[in-house]
Amino acid sequence: MTDVRQPGSQDSDRHYSDADLESDLRWWAAANYLTVAQIYLQDNTLLREPLRPEHIKPRLLGHWGTSPGLSMIYALLNRLIRRTDTDCLYVTGPGHGGPALVAATYLEGTYSEVYPGVSRDAAGIHRLCRQFSTPGGIPSHVSVQTPGSIHEGGELGYALAHAAGAAFDHPNLLVACVIGDGEAETGPLSASWKLPAFLNPERDGAVVPILHVNGAKIAGPTVHGRSSDADVEAFLGGQGWAPVVVSGDDPRQVFPALHRALTDAHTAISDLRREARAGRRSAAKWPAIVLRTPKGWTGPHTVDGVLVEGTHRAHQVPLSGVRTDEAHLRQLEEWMRSYRPDELFDSSGALVPDLVRLAPQGDKRMGSSPYANGGRLRADLPVPPLEKYALPIEKPGTTHHETTRVLGELLRDLYAATTTPDGGGYFRLFCPDETSSNRLGAVFEVTDRCWQLPVTDYDDGLSARGRVMEVLSEHLCEGWLEGYLLSGRHGLFASYEAFAMVSVSMLVQHTKWLQHAVDLPWRAPVASLNVLLTSTCWRNDHNGFSHQGPGMIDAVIPLAPDVVRVWLPPDSNTLLSIADHCLRSTDHVNLVVVDKQPHLQYLTLAEAHAHCAAGASVWEWAGTESSAGTEPDVVLAAAGDVPTQEVLAAAQLLREHTPELVTRVVNVVDLMGLLTPTEHPHGFDARTFLDLFTADTHVVFAFHGYSRAVHELMHGRPAPDRFHVRGFSEQGTTTTPFDMVVLNRMSRYHLALAALRRTRREPAGATELADFCLRQLERHGEYVVAHLEDMPEVRDWTWS
Amino acid sequence: MTDVRQPGSQDSDRHYSDADLESDLRWWAAANYLTVAQIYLQDNTLLREPLRPEHIKPRLLGHWGTSPGLSMIYALLNRLIRRTDTDCLYVTGPGHGGPALVAATYLEGTYSEVYPGVSRDAAGIHRLCRQFSTPGGIPSHVSVQTPGSIHEGGELGYALAHAAGAAFDHPNLLVACVIGDGEAETGPLSASWKLPAFLNPERDGAVVPILHVNGAKIAGPTVHGRSSDADVEAFLGGQGWAPVVVSGDDPRQVFPALHRALTDAHTAISDLRREARAGRRSAAKWPAIVLRTPKGWTGPHTVDGVLVEGTHRAHQVPLSGVRTDEAHLRQLEEWMRSYRPDELFDSSGALVPDLVRLAPQGDKRMGSSPYANGGRLRADLPVPPLEKYALPIEKPGTTHHETTRVLGELLRDLYAATTTPDGGGYFRLFCPDETSSNRLGAVFEVTDRCWQLPVTDYDDGLSARGRVMEVLSEHLCEGWLEGYLLSGRHGLFASYEAFAMVSVSMLVQHTKWLQHAVDLPWRAPVASLNVLLTSTCWRNDHNGFSHQGPGMIDAVIPLAPDVVRVWLPPDSNTLLSIADHCLRSTDHVNLVVVDKQPHLQYLTLAEAHAHCAAGASVWEWAGTESSAGTEPDVVLAAAGDVPTQEVLAAAQLLREHTPELVTRVVNVVDLMGLLTPTEHPHGFDARTFLDLFTADTHVVFAFHGYSRAVHELMHGRPAPDRFHVRGFSEQGTTTTPFDMVVLNRMSRYHLALAALRRTRREPAGATELADFCLRQLERHGEYVVAHLEDMPEVRDWTWS
Repeated sequence: MTDVRQPGSQDSDRHYSDADLESDLRWWAAANYLTVAQIYLQDNTLLREPLRPEHIKPRLLGHWGTSPGLSMIYALLNRLIRRTDTDCLYVTGPGHGGPALVAATYLEGTYSEVYPGVSRDAAGIHRLCRQFSTPGGIPSHVSVQTPGSIHEGGELGYALAHAAGAAFDHPNLLVACVIGDGEAETGPLSASWKLPAFLNPERDGAVVPILHVNGAKIAGPTVHGRSSDADVEAFLGGQGWAPVVVSGDDPRQVFPALHRALTDAHTAISDLRREARAGRRSAAKWPAIVLRTPKGWTGPHTVDGVLVEGTHRAHQVPLSGVRTDEAHLRQLEEWMRSYRPDELFDSSGALVPDLVRLAPQGDKRMGSSPYANGGRLRADLPVPPLEKYALPIEKPGTTHHETTRVLGELLRDLYAATTTPDGGGYFRLFCPDETSSNRLGAVFEVTDRCWQLPVTDYDDGLSARGRVMEVLSEHLCEGWLEGYLLSGRHGLFASYEAFAMVSVSMLVQHTKWLQHAVDLPWRAPVASLNVLLTSTCWRNDHNGFSHQGPGMIDAVIPLAPDVVRVWLPPDSNTLLSIADHCLRSTDHVNLVVVDKQPHLQYLTLAEAHAHCAAGASVWEWAGTESSAGTEPDVVLAAAGDVPTQEVLAAAQLLREHTPELVTRVVNVVDLMGLLTPTEHPHGFDARTFLDLFTADTHVVFAFHGYSRAVHELMHGRPAPDRFHVRGFSEQGTTTTPFDMVVLNRMSRYHLALAALRRTRREPAGATELADFCLRQLERHGEYVVAHLEDMPEVRDWTWS
Repeated sequence: MTDVRQPGSQDSDRHYSDADLESDLRWWAAANYLTVAQIYLQDNTLLREPLRPEHIKPRLLGHWGTSPGLSMIYALLNRLIRRTDTDCLYVTGPGHGGPALVAATYLEGTYSEVYPGVSRDAAGIHRLCRQFSTPGGIPSHVSVQTPGSIHEGGELGYALAHAAGAAFDHPNLLVACVIGDGEAETGPLSASWKLPAFLNPERDGAVVPILHVNGAKIAGPTVHGRSSDADVEAFLGGQGWAPVVVSGDDPRQVFPALHRALTDAHTAISDLRREARAGRRSAAKWPAIVLRTPKGWTGPHTVDGVLVEGTHRAHQVPLSGVRTDEAHLRQLEEWMRSYRPDELFDSSGALVPDLVRLAPQGDKRMGSSPYANGGRLRADLPVPPLEKYALPIEKPGTTHHETTRVLGELLRDLYAATTTPDGGGYFRLFCPDETSSNRLGAVFEVTDRCWQLPVTDYDDGLSARGRVMEVLSEHLCEGWLEGYLLSGRHGLFASYEAFAMVSVSMLVQHTKWLQHAVDLPWRAPVASLNVLLTSTCWRNDHNGFSHQGPGMIDAVIPLAPDVVRVWLPPDSNTLLSIADHCLRSTDHVNLVVVDKQPHLQYLTLAEAHAHCAAGASVWEWAGTESSAGTEPDVVLAAAGDVPTQEVLAAAQLLREHTPELVTRVVNVVDLMGLLTPTEHPHGFDARTFLDLFTADTHVVFAFHGYSRAVHELMHGRPAPDRFHVRGFSEQGTTTTPFDMVVLNRMSRYHLALAALRRTRREPAGATELADFCLRQLERHGEYVVAHLEDMPEVRDWTWS
């Protein structure tokens, strides 16, 4: 059954001659042939002689099932691009169909340009086959190594979010996003369908989702695969799409139908754009395609009498016994010869000229699209001079400020500086409904929240033209930003610290992408993935335990040291300095952890720059070292805003009660500096480390996150056992900020007590100070117990 | 506008008299009054005197916006329960509406039974208000402390998955699941709507989703809020639901309409059940309710001239200046008195009798439901004797087996032993489409994959009655299992190791829940959350880098030590022993990490039991210590299956080439044993630790995960710097298993070289062995480089 209901395009556009069909079917045969050859063959790759067992690879790896569908779509997009000169980006949700995308980009010539060793001849095809899923070769999935890709084929669920991110602010781009019906069961993909509420035809590109319903996953059917067309159409229609169903198992029916569907989609998009760019809002929905074709189409229909084509059994390698089973080998040869390779490749092994001509030209080829190699499009971000935002600091630790506010002002001006005349731009903030809550609301002075659904007169900062992306999904924020960055722009994802864990696996996968991208000279550097973690564990005293979790740091530490950085600015001016650095950087993942509540401020902008450049510094004004080169009795170190405050308060207690004790206060802003330089490019060298922490003095270290994270970083440093780390120890509830540091034993009193226990010598006043600290903690305990009886005043609610 | 279109129920059932309405409105007023009182008042909590500033809490915390809607639904469910004697569980998606649920369970009496200090009188109401969002009191969100809850109100997205998990195999349960329209934007919630494909009316309970569209999140509108009824209905209708819209802002209209909708839903469910349980499959869809009511309903309509009711501004505390602003204070008093507290509570502060009578009786009260305190329903799991599944081991390390297969056989028999006559049961396996791939396919001998959509004759192990839950969403697997466990059953979530990170934040939140649950005597222990991580990083050589990530271990280590355990069984019989322990345990989160590919097998079942009970053992047969008490020259330790293999191979190299070297081989199966006993209940005591690792011998430690995880665990142990850990160091691609250990420098050759560098003395043969190892690694390097030219045979593809 083939069913294309949507009208719209001109007949001439939709015309698809028999010759067109024959050409596309032959190109498709070539793509399918090369897909099968990559999976199976190590020799005789053009089948110039009868297939023998020794031609078969020793290990068969790869996914056939989804591949023919991916190639069919590629063929028809090529035709659309040639006819319309559209810039088109191909996002491969079923990325395990890697060989299909490798084949397609090989056939169009991109692959050989990027990898000259894989030439457009028999030797190149030999190499193409051998390298696939082979040590020293290429991965089996669509990956960073695949030209034209911005989307790793592995962890499923992010295709449509990545596609959307690439489309934002690329007004003339069409992103064809193939979504497997397996992937469509995931959470992130399911949320992604709400895109029409956020995609503005006036200044954004278009996303054409192609829900590829081949009906099966690895081992069973899919929900969409067994749902009626009407149900799938209602599902999509209810979310702002105008779906059209294309289905069938006869290529001679399906190719023309899909051609019409793509042509109609292109026309519908042109109409949407024209209306929107003429200032007319229309209620038209975005086109979408539901493509129902058999899994493993054109492959073995049955194997050993069992149905394979169209079932989950076609998912990977449908004929597995070809090295030992003569019947399987013959069936493979028959299958491969059914594509008539001799008619597709000439005697040199080159694709025949009439098929070469089916590819678009130059950068219009999807494998060569600069949108898929975003560094080629990236402009440097015009980060303004920071002086404008800097807080004046007369004396450290005497004024309070909501630390993230200055960043909001910087982001506001970045929006202004990067806005293009068409209302688009190349910087965006992504945040799950928390921009104002996170004190970044200054951005709303120059733009709004992006919103394509109706707006009322009581909405705040909300419009169709708005470019702040708020949606209550960390997955969408992260995925949209990843797509935005990989297609050449800049951005920031701001999240409540605890809930950044919701999308941590996406950040891990993006880190893996960047780790391998830097090894590919043809991939130009992209802007770093900048993640602001605010509303942190220490100051989610109001929201309670579910909102208290600094685990992102632990998840990032083990990742590629060339990619990941963790920043813990203690105050506003350091945050500005860090933000400036991160926003200018490329190919990194920057985690910036800082709270949004009023906090003490310490450093001038100049001091902050020096501090951030060093990664960690001795804050001499806070300790009691004389200028002479004496060793301190104890070092107090902090990383993070609340730890800094508590360490400084502890230092003050020690200064006042035990004045002869020589203390040093160290502040760490670049957490990866704690690693050695062989382990991380930011690692402090041995000299610097000694200058900060000495060789053998005990260090009481207050840390923003889980304390063991510091211990793992310290491994390999001299005498790591002398580091006594207090951090978040998974104690929390709805309570006061001060109770949070008490519960987690990181309060000033705990730190002072720890310092007294670890000093080289017992100073005068130590006993009295210890008594004082214990009494304060006891009083606090009584205060909590008594609280329900006798509610204390506000000042006791924050810091006693 | 009120609009209830769905017919169905008997008129008598739907009848809702004026007296019913008046009663429910008064109960609602009481609930709303107590909600506001909790947020605002520390004194004069029954408003027996004029409201003065000193009656106001020093800090105002809590979420008003969603609360009236939650209470209205509660009131009408109470009525439904009383009429139908249904067992009903209330899942509060907008869990920040904590005070509403506290109020509702207080009004029904449950709260005072669970917390006698909060009595049903004026003193109790005083306490109820003071404890809310207060140090030493209760959290602001719905939490484990809230009677009747199985769902934490914090990280959004899991309400419908938890509801589904509670409904599976509870044939007579009705789960009313309130879903906020903010939460509905998240990925996990979006995926959850596919539930009708998995919920079997024959043996499962029902879930009635109540999509509560109040239109706004913290700072902006919601997608469903600004979508048309038709679009929302199409969205739900396309996924197997029959939604009915109830909307309005006049309680006298909305209460009767919602009453009818709930009654109709109950009737529709009864019909579905009757048909299904009579063996008739019907195409009927599951009822669902879309409830559109104003955010902050009945609260301040405007504040300082700005519209609040019905907008995002009603999200938290709508009147914030009540302590200092006389007008705000008067508006608060007026608001609170609008509920007429004097007519709701008698002179003693007790709820008036006619409102008391509106609550169901005993365990039918939603706050008392045993389904929400699943430990009360939990039966011990009849884990069969393990001997049946044990692999015979004649000599360690001589046979290969797909390690997880034995677990599949055990799970098969668990399914059989726990199946109830109605076709339900109390054990389920949850897995994203990988049960067979993970070698657990034996379960399909006794049950099928659960599937309520059409089944074809080429499906494998698929049926409506099947009880293995496969859906391509780690979020749904994890969320369904959590709901299943918290409502009293047992289960296992099996995942590819890398992709368990997709739902790691859910596991973190569940751990937090259990951490606090054990402090509540009224919460009976529930079965542990057991997570099998298989298809591990070392053996995802075929799928590539995206599939290679052991980060779950790092995410779990910092969590509550009383809850989390990490198990690394090296072979099948240890896996059996661990599984037996985990399946019998309660209130834990067990991470079991073991690969599915063929691996060497080592221990008999008896040896495995002893090994697992110890947590770690010296494998004497693998080292070269004599029986005398000499200290080894070097210790080789392993945790995990591939590390064990490589350590044993390294030990063999050392034994053969440097026979005089005294080596000890240690195997660690209980990772948390590396912590000290003060840090984790499983921590090895000092004596045990010394017996394993000595006091000062160097230890070459091969670890399954990121190596720094071992370093962080070792902090606090004697001389931790002597532990030289090799683990996954984020190097991977599509390659061979052996290349994976080489890339990550954990191969037998790397380990032997590391051991030679660290021995107490240089044994004879050391230079030759080092040369040999370096030559092997060089050969391997050449092999990879040469690979594309000269493809080696299969045997070279795995382990050289």
